[in-house]
Amino acid sequence: MAQVTTSQQVNEQIMTAQSAYEASRQISPRQRAEWLNAIAKGLGQHADELIELARKETHLDVARLQGEMKRTIFQLQLFAKEIQYGPHFEATIDHADPNWGMGARPDIRRMNVALGVVGVFGASNFPFAFSVIGGDSASALAAGCTVLHKIHDAHLTLGLRTGEIVVEALKNAGAPEGVFSVIHGREAAEALVDHPLTQAIGFTGSLAGGRALFDRASQRAKPIPFFGELGSINPVFVTEKAWKVRQNDIVSGYANAATMGMGQFCTKPGLLFVPSFNKDEIIPVLIKEFSSKKFAPLLSANLRKGYEAALAKVSSLTDVEVLVKGNEENIPSPTILMTTVEAIKAEPEILELEMFGPASIMVQYEREDELTEVIALLEGQLTCTLQAEADENLANFIDAVHEKCGRVLWNGWPTGVTVSYAQHHGGPYPSTTSSARTSVGTGAIGRFMRAVAYQTFPDAMLPPALQENNPWKIIRRIDGRWLEAE
Amino acid sequence: MAQVTTSQQVNEQIMTAQSAYEASRQISPRQRAEWLNAIAKGLGQHADELIELARKETHLDVARLQGEMKRTIFQLQLFAKEIQYGPHFEATIDHADPNWGMGARPDIRRMNVALGVVGVFGASNFPFAFSVIGGDSASALAAGCTVLHKIHDAHLTLGLRTGEIVVEALKNAGAPEGVFSVIHGREAAEALVDHPLTQAIGFTGSLAGGRALFDRASQRAKPIPFFGELGSINPVFVTEKAWKVRQNDIVSGYANAATMGMGQFCTKPGLLFVPSFNKDEIIPVLIKEFSSKKFAPLLSANLRKGYEAALAKVSSLTDVEVLVKGNEENIPSPTILMTTVEAIKAEPEILELEMFGPASIMVQYEREDELTEVIALLEGQLTCTLQAEADENLANFIDAVHEKCGRVLWNGWPTGVTVSYAQHHGGPYPSTTSSARTSVGTGAIGRFMRAVAYQTFPDAMLPPALQENNPWKIIRRIDGRWLEAE
Repeated sequence: MAQVTTSQQVNEQIMTAQSAYEASRQISPRQRAEWLNAIAKGLGQHADELIELARKETHLDVARLQGEMKRTIFQLQLFAKEIQYGPHFEATIDHADPNWGMGARPDIRRMNVALGVVGVFGASNFPFAFSVIGGDSASALAAGCTVLHKIHDAHLTLGLRTGEIVVEALKNAGAPEGVFSVIHGREAAEALVDHPLTQAIGFTGSLAGGRALFDRASQRAKPIPFFGELGSINPVFVTEKAWKVRQNDIVSGYANAATMGMGQFCTKPGLLFVPSFNKDEIIPVLIKEFSSKKFAPLLSANLRKGYEAALAKVSSLTDVEVLVKGNEENIPSPTILMTTVEAIKAEPEILELEMFGPASIMVQYEREDELTEVIALLEGQLTCTLQAEADENLANFIDAVHEKCGRVLWNGWPTGVTVSYAQHHGGPYPSTTSSARTSVGTGAIGRFMRAVAYQTFPDAMLPPALQENNPWKIIRRIDGRWLEAE
Repeated sequence: MAQVTTSQQVNEQIMTAQSAYEASRQISPRQRAEWLNAIAKGLGQHADELIELARKETHLDVARLQGEMKRTIFQLQLFAKEIQYGPHFEATIDHADPNWGMGARPDIRRMNVALGVVGVFGASNFPFAFSVIGGDSASALAAGCTVLHKIHDAHLTLGLRTGEIVVEALKNAGAPEGVFSVIHGREAAEALVDHPLTQAIGFTGSLAGGRALFDRASQRAKPIPFFGELGSINPVFVTEKAWKVRQNDIVSGYANAATMGMGQFCTKPGLLFVPSFNKDEIIPVLIKEFSSKKFAPLLSANLRKGYEAALAKVSSLTDVEVLVKGNEENIPSPTILMTTVEAIKAEPEILELEMFGPASIMVQYEREDELTEVIALLEGQLTCTLQAEADENLANFIDAVHEKCGRVLWNGWPTGVTVSYAQHHGGPYPSTTSSARTSVGTGAIGRFMRAVAYQTFPDAMLPPALQENNPWKIIRRIDGRWLEAE
């Protein structure tokens, strides 16, 4: 196994990353886009090699890993386009106005600039899309930051090799040394969060680990933002009407979503609320669904231990029954538990216990209006899902649900999270540490920027994004109106 | 003196504010704008009464208070217009796309929504613009939040009366009870930061007080964002050439900016870096400047004590000399100190000591390139200012300065902070606790919002901001392009 990175090495890498940031902060979006596209190309050229490494370390199947690689490459390319369109700059120009309502206004122009050196912690469950050069690293680089990535122990060999490929691609594209580098080991991780030149952290992982690092980042002499995605239970609410119309479809979709990637998704539906059911009818449907699926070992021994412990804890709660029991072999099969809204109201802890793996709970309700009480008890979630019919009046219900999460789905399943302009992968605490921000989609870039305003500057001394003739041809807000470049 | 608000009362007010938030979260921007305009109108109707109360409690002169009232009214009206244009929603629509680069994309639509109940702490130095219904309250209300405002002890009578006027105006405009209320006292302040339903804090005040509340907000079981503006030294850098060309104008502008509002501005220039000078030439210019100005007691006895202590501490540092000594009477006159870049390099602490009141330091440098070393030693600032000539090449210098602050001024003075679209009143820690955000200008609204995405929703069940026919006529991003309503 590769040696861990020492604090001393982390310090040296951060100093190099700071120099690289300073050397590159003035480059055009077009040039930065070339870097992102060069990384995408490098990944494409080494895709087979990386997928094979990932398969060995994560037990995820090749088709899934190929899809994830495609997503990771696409994400870099989309961000490359996005920064040339330029909304992340939020470039805003207020020309001098002697008649401004509160008194004469000077010429003032604002834009977002990169924060500097950023630390990124990779997740174990998406070895490409949320790891070394996944969403956090890609958005930090797109913002103009330089990145130290802390490799997840569960795919260290893959992480190191991915890091080499990214560094090589950046070098060939002419980027200064230090724009991107990897570290590994716990001591290195802490040194990264503590370093005075580290300006922000992107993190995807567990609530316990994420909260500890959030506290560490917040308690620094100079606190830094910590963008942590810490997981979610992702309740799905099925109305009486929908259950009546398409019960089997719903159970089938649920069984699929709850076990996709062996349930190792932060958007796995962990709770399915349905009208009281006859379990003898449901069990065969679930078993039939599972019989057609291929299972695999969990991502790591550590994760397996955590899954077993969480499953044991939830199973031991009052009024929780096993509907379908998974085996406990090297390759675990799915477990579906069963409880009631009444039991949850008596013991709301069940709403906070994420079982990261192929387990989920079906929750029976007597009356649909009980669901409003459950929603009030919910912690912050990445997603909430409604399975309902279009002619139902659910306005109040949707209103209540939107308070608790960052994404609401209608008659879908929350597991897939597309990378696009409107995507929001975030939510109130504890699903994330920053409910205003997303870690998926083009909106993720803004996390790693801050604003600077320039007052009464000569045009030639302004950054290109704010010069009158708009040399970068980015979208800007001028005297109050957003305008695309001509 | 009015009785302090008890924790019990804070709890009741927050519950009412939560109900008001829930009752009003679906109203249109037009209706919300009417509320803001009603408050503006209420202030206008009671302007003379409020200005007289402010004059008595703050010692600020009437002309200044009239200007501040005008600004405060304008700010509410500008935010009322802004929310109808709608950029704060960041409404983004991605239509379903079977050919999306990473695989078929579902219809997904995102918007920003209000956080809920927000706590605001008023500053003592702007009894209107940064107090009860100043920038933080106005932007939180514009975002759709409901507000509890903690009145600053230094103008309690004014704060209570302003609160009554705001509550009355909202009531007459048809807003539910609890959209806005005031509290006062330290116990109430802590109860506000700790309450589970409080979703964010806006704060303007001291580093010590602000950091303590930031820590409190971050250490909650459910941490909440704390937007604190904690002060700044606001260095001004004068090039050799500018000093040669217009030394007297610069000294005059500096004397004016450093003593405006008795130096009680978070944007007061606390350090003026100039080439070595003959003090016998400067002193008469400064004294002449001060002789034409009217002085007044500081805002409060407490603030005066802090000012004297800070002034004594800075004066006691090695190689700090008094250039112009202020008196120590009830109405203090300005003090201008003098030191050198060399002394600062030996004792950088001077760069961190804000003297909140009519004192500032002139710093002599031998060579212009020494300034780069000083900039590297600077803490985060709200502003940095350059006094320079247009034909000088200062690209690297501007580059270095922009790392340290949120607003850079060219041949101006940082004291005035206009309310506009491009304004940024923020900066790296310790000037604020959130360098990405501003507390002045329309950008301030976004602090009190978070994002929610809706996936594959029937159009009629979407919030109006995201419905296909854009009933609110707001600006939106559609399939990647920002488009104004037709």
